[in-house]
Amino acid sequence: AMEVTKDNFKEVLPLVIQAINQSNFIAIDGEFSGLRGTKQFNLFDYPSERYKRVREECTDFLLIQMGICCFKYDICLRKVVHEAYDFYIFPNGEGSFLSQASSLSFLASHGFDFNKLFKSGITYLNNVEELERQKHIQAWSQSSDSNNEGRDIDIPDQWKDHMSSVCQAIEEFLISDEESLKLEKTNAFVRRLIYQTVKKKYPTVFLELSGKENNDKVLVVHKGNEMDKALLKQRQCEEKWKELDEDVGFSKVISAIATSKKLVVGHNMLLDICHMMNCFHKPLPAEYEDFKKELQQLFPCILDTKTMASLAPYKDVINFTDLPKLYEQLNKEPFGIPNIDIASQKSGYQVDCDSQFHKASYDSFITGCCFLGLYSDLAKSKSITTIDLDLIKRYTNKIFMSRSIDINLFNIVKEDGSIIFDFSVTHVGCHFRDSRSQSRVLRDFPGKLEMRKYIQIVSTIR
Amino acid sequence: AMEVTKDNFKEVLPLVIQAINQSNFIAIDGEFSGLRGTKQFNLFDYPSERYKRVREECTDFLLIQMGICCFKYDICLRKVVHEAYDFYIFPNGEGSFLSQASSLSFLASHGFDFNKLFKSGITYLNNVEELERQKHIQAWSQSSDSNNEGRDIDIPDQWKDHMSSVCQAIEEFLISDEESLKLEKTNAFVRRLIYQTVKKKYPTVFLELSGKENNDKVLVVHKGNEMDKALLKQRQCEEKWKELDEDVGFSKVISAIATSKKLVVGHNMLLDICHMMNCFHKPLPAEYEDFKKELQQLFPCILDTKTMASLAPYKDVINFTDLPKLYEQLNKEPFGIPNIDIASQKSGYQVDCDSQFHKASYDSFITGCCFLGLYSDLAKSKSITTIDLDLIKRYTNKIFMSRSIDINLFNIVKEDGSIIFDFSVTHVGCHFRDSRSQSRVLRDFPGKLEMRKYIQIVSTIR
Repeated sequence: AMEVTKDNFKEVLPLVIQAINQSNFIAIDGEFSGLRGTKQFNLFDYPSERYKRVREECTDFLLIQMGICCFKYDICLRKVVHEAYDFYIFPNGEGSFLSQASSLSFLASHGFDFNKLFKSGITYLNNVEELERQKHIQAWSQSSDSNNEGRDIDIPDQWKDHMSSVCQAIEEFLISDEESLKLEKTNAFVRRLIYQTVKKKYPTVFLELSGKENNDKVLVVHKGNEMDKALLKQRQCEEKWKELDEDVGFSKVISAIATSKKLVVGHNMLLDICHMMNCFHKPLPAEYEDFKKELQQLFPCILDTKTMASLAPYKDVINFTDLPKLYEQLNKEPFGIPNIDIASQKSGYQVDCDSQFHKASYDSFITGCCFLGLYSDLAKSKSITTIDLDLIKRYTNKIFMSRSIDINLFNIVKEDGSIIFDFSVTHVGCHFRDSRSQSRVLRDFPGKLEMRKYIQIVSTIR
Repeated sequence: AMEVTKDNFKEVLPLVIQAINQSNFIAIDGEFSGLRGTKQFNLFDYPSERYKRVREECTDFLLIQMGICCFKYDICLRKVVHEAYDFYIFPNGEGSFLSQASSLSFLASHGFDFNKLFKSGITYLNNVEELERQKHIQAWSQSSDSNNEGRDIDIPDQWKDHMSSVCQAIEEFLISDEESLKLEKTNAFVRRLIYQTVKKKYPTVFLELSGKENNDKVLVVHKGNEMDKALLKQRQCEEKWKELDEDVGFSKVISAIATSKKLVVGHNMLLDICHMMNCFHKPLPAEYEDFKKELQQLFPCILDTKTMASLAPYKDVINFTDLPKLYEQLNKEPFGIPNIDIASQKSGYQVDCDSQFHKASYDSFITGCCFLGLYSDLAKSKSITTIDLDLIKRYTNKIFMSRSIDINLFNIVKEDGSIIFDFSVTHVGCHFRDSRSQSRVLRDFPGKLEMRKYIQIVSTIR
């Protein structure tokens, strides 16, 4: 797969957008700085309750890598081809985030390059953050120089030597051919002294405060009048707009997927979807129903391969639905995964390559393979030239809900719970077989004896 | 400097302890996953208030690298020598921690190796965590096998094939020469089924659940009776005690420093000290006065070079007290840093080497150099053979308090505020020169007009 960091993002972006627009479907997978963990999930959560827990998790932990694998039918080769990308993603700025020590150790031991992430991760902004930044630039472009105003301060004795040497440097600069003079880095108090001195003593120069971070800030002396100063400000303003455009970064890839309205495939994709929406589109809504509406608009057609493998007719023949085991089962009779090649001159995976699970692009590739395995079973054909959405209608827009006794999916388009699941309940034992509604009643109005038995049995499979 | 990870910690530990015990003083420096930042500090904090803020910060963020540099006078070489170590430190287990995106990017761009940290960081436990683990092992060693108990579960249809193949494997194992049989990895529910089946059908074998993490757990079948099972448990118990001893890890280095009672030198060392105490000794006490007592016991003699440079007679001649600038000033007239070599056959820094600020061991080395520069000024001699604690009495056990208008140190041994500072107030302007008590009164009983002026002036130097 192709690794993308901020160092090559600009060149790669048009290629990714082209791949998205030409694809039949797009498989995605995210890696995170940590997970709240299943321990905090209540086995009896309603989807709306579970959503609220996951929403919290999304604002605490970071999405640090995104694997995107675009699949299309190649007419010349007469087979499905793919191209896979790994995006390292890391935010700009002063914000803090949570990590789980065990998650980072796990990823590092699977070859995840954290030095690359922290040094060269691609930045991103959601719509709200982008708007804030726009307002900030507009306000800045209209602001005046506050450091130039206010009452003069007496120069304390200990800084008198320093100020003399600054004045001397400016006077030498004035009779030189140089266009600008960078002063020595100093603290905010001394900068304040320099502002007032320059204003009083040197009317033919003006000061620019350069450097983004507080610790990098240095004063630069420019020759010129108010007009030159205004021109400089305009140049700086353009600079800021360009910077903002760059900071939007990876969000552009997600916008391209949304605009394409292509089928988006993931495996156990709740966290991926929530993080993607939260980071690259809009902060996750407080209410579950708003989340469903928002998600339908952003990605009108999504498919979770874990949901698909857990629904009829697959639930009775597929015992394990975690990604590696699902892939293994779909590679054998009675299933089979169609031939998949790497798109010409692109990066991707050989089907028989060494397994690289937990690398985002590999997981997204395998997810796409699993989808094609299941799809070709439905289509009763190994040669797939297009994805017929009608054929997978009963599986789309249903996100898998893990660690739940009786409700097993988030039904994004319909009311939740319109499909009866029973396989989890089967595991629990005979007491509650086919008793989704019974267990739900038990939770809300627990008959004490029955509830105790239920919990006892459930606890044996935790 | 020597880099220490869990891969070489066992070999290096005795060398470090020897270096500590032979040293005249030990310089330390920590790197963190993030800082709450000065923005959250109130310029008017009392030490007890500031302590509470820093205490919170310590429990959120991680200490990820510790630089330790031991200085001693070498009688043969007739000069001061040093050896420097960089310890990568990372906790075990499921806990989460906060990071600041900008801190990680900053460290990564200065060459910090996060892959090494997450893969091979040395673990640690404070006293409380160690005690908990001890209790846990004791409880485990007396526990019986809970998976062997409880009501039998009917084997669901979909698992019947799987259970038959498990039984077949065990029967083949019984007539083989093998001592143990590792079963295929499976989920908790299936393990439950295997336990009940083995108990019923195979009295001459017993099961061991091996693997630490939930996802690694596999069942191992052993030939033998109850006696063999008890012996296995004893071996596992010894294993757990050894594991605990290894997990104490880096805390042993800090114990060695504490036991040595050597002078510990840091620069702006509040965070270093608080993190060290919290991670490697005891959770930070809720009350500031308890913290002071605890710290005196742990490190009876500490010196903060930023405090030293900010007190008489240095406060009037040293303008900048951040580490790089302090070092620069102490390297020039009227100061001078004594000759410092690398201890023979050890790792350390050449005095004229490339600057590597923000690498923990380098910062601790430079801190030690600064201390020697200041000390040799006090001692009026460049040849230092020992550290006379009487000579530095007025500087020891006073930790610098940054971002504060009038109180500038945590006085660990005495009452806080027993020394009058005035240099910060001087910066503010003439209004409050030498008026520490006035500003304190203003804070607590603000005369509105005066307070407004004060804040206005203070805000110009932020």
